[in-house]
Amino acid sequence: MGESPAQVGHSVIRVQSGNWTEGDDVLAAEEPMEIRLLTEADQWKTAQSIAITMRTPGDDFELAVGFLHGEGIIGSREDVLDVSYCLDETEDQRLNIVTVTLRPGLAVDLTRLDRHFYTTSSCGVCGKAALDALDLQGYAPVPTGPQVRGDVIRALPETLRHKQAVFRQTGGLHAAGLFDLDGKLLDLREDVGRHNALDKLIGHQLMRGHDQLTDRLLLLSGRASFELLQKALVARIPIVAAVGAPSSLAVQLAETFNVTLAGFVRTDGFNIYTGAERVVR
Amino acid sequence: MGESPAQVGHSVIRVQSGNWTEGDDVLAAEEPMEIRLLTEADQWKTAQSIAITMRTPGDDFELAVGFLHGEGIIGSREDVLDVSYCLDETEDQRLNIVTVTLRPGLAVDLTRLDRHFYTTSSCGVCGKAALDALDLQGYAPVPTGPQVRGDVIRALPETLRHKQAVFRQTGGLHAAGLFDLDGKLLDLREDVGRHNALDKLIGHQLMRGHDQLTDRLLLLSGRASFELLQKALVARIPIVAAVGAPSSLAVQLAETFNVTLAGFVRTDGFNIYTGAERVVR
Repeated sequence: MGESPAQVGHSVIRVQSGNWTEGDDVLAAEEPMEIRLLTEADQWKTAQSIAITMRTPGDDFELAVGFLHGEGIIGSREDVLDVSYCLDETEDQRLNIVTVTLRPGLAVDLTRLDRHFYTTSSCGVCGKAALDALDLQGYAPVPTGPQVRGDVIRALPETLRHKQAVFRQTGGLHAAGLFDLDGKLLDLREDVGRHNALDKLIGHQLMRGHDQLTDRLLLLSGRASFELLQKALVARIPIVAAVGAPSSLAVQLAETFNVTLAGFVRTDGFNIYTGAERVVR
Repeated sequence: MGESPAQVGHSVIRVQSGNWTEGDDVLAAEEPMEIRLLTEADQWKTAQSIAITMRTPGDDFELAVGFLHGEGIIGSREDVLDVSYCLDETEDQRLNIVTVTLRPGLAVDLTRLDRHFYTTSSCGVCGKAALDALDLQGYAPVPTGPQVRGDVIRALPETLRHKQAVFRQTGGLHAAGLFDLDGKLLDLREDVGRHNALDKLIGHQLMRGHDQLTDRLLLLSGRASFELLQKALVARIPIVAAVGAPSSLAVQLAETFNVTLAGFVRTDGFNIYTGAERVVR
């Protein structure tokens, strides 16, 4: 077992009943990363800092691209001219600043960022406003279909766990997995932040030219929140399954935008909250 | 079982092996909340919006106050003149905007907010900078002592779970619990966001005049990240225990600021990452 940037060794004392044993442990790495945008409007001179996230190092370009996609800043691979680290910085932070250069002519609306997802002028700040904002930004409901078998959904968490390399060693990572409709794992990302795991997953797909994931299943290793469902919607994923519970607003989003949402997925069963017609009985 | 604002009913289909059963489920509520600041510098006229967080409704004033405390904007109950909902807004969002009015004369440094916790001029963006920033902001290491017995730590999660009312019904909430050194649960907060649960807990203590939690234990129901340890440090909590794994930067923060950090806490044992001298062998 070699160390990757995603994990860090640390000494530990294991207390088991009354016994103390000193040893070594492996921790999930957590480091801040800054995302900067370089655009035509800035005449490609000064990159604007738009976000800092605490993330597990690795797949940093995918994280930046996936984040921008989830926020509605970019829509496809063609919108991205270049992604790079700021190599002129000091050694310590060299790999903690990622600059995304957008294609000429792309209209960038930075008001889409962050809090603007949750507010509209009509209602201000509330769950309904958060849903209305997505509607106003042009996200349509996911079309009817495709379908998936119940036993395929039940098998997803086991498949994901088998492949979660860093989690197995650290116990400290969230995961997002992308599957085809037969339950074959196509892609997997892990991170201390669950939003980051999903951004990395979607960002990787986008960079490969897959920005419409309409025949895919998404599995989340934890709970399903509004923000995770929002990212799945923007990527047009029709079926989202979570090992944990969904929140009320995640269910409302799934209902409003015709996403199938399953929760508490286990080997012997699961709950369907919305879009049951996509699950073969 | 009555419904609280913290939970929302929703229909569900339970798939157990091949059987489908329709029923009702209870979800953890998730709604955006905006925090606004009203200060002397603004002549108490226009409140500035400083954050929007997706939270579970309930203990909203404590959440706002705890958030401001964690960010270093306020230090004690005396810094807060008033906390209120914006009652002039529409019904939908009436309870989703909280305005905190600060005392006259309080110097407010909004550059402390958010990303500035992770950067310094010397190093820019990196884990070390995040730690240095806390140092620069005047947070000293937590003093030596007090001590706690290992069996007290082992019993914390069971005590917390017994009291997690909303979690029992929804399975969808993170929790933060404050204990005395004998393992007696003093306070508990639940939220869809783990940062919010801790902000509510610390905010409630602060509003009761307890801004130095130097003889308290904190239990986190999930993993221990940098940001959670940062909030605990600002509240001067000497011992933090987590049911899940700590991240690398959480351990570094605990080490740098002399906080005892235990992870993977179970009935039969736990791991000590830092500050083992506070645990009675």
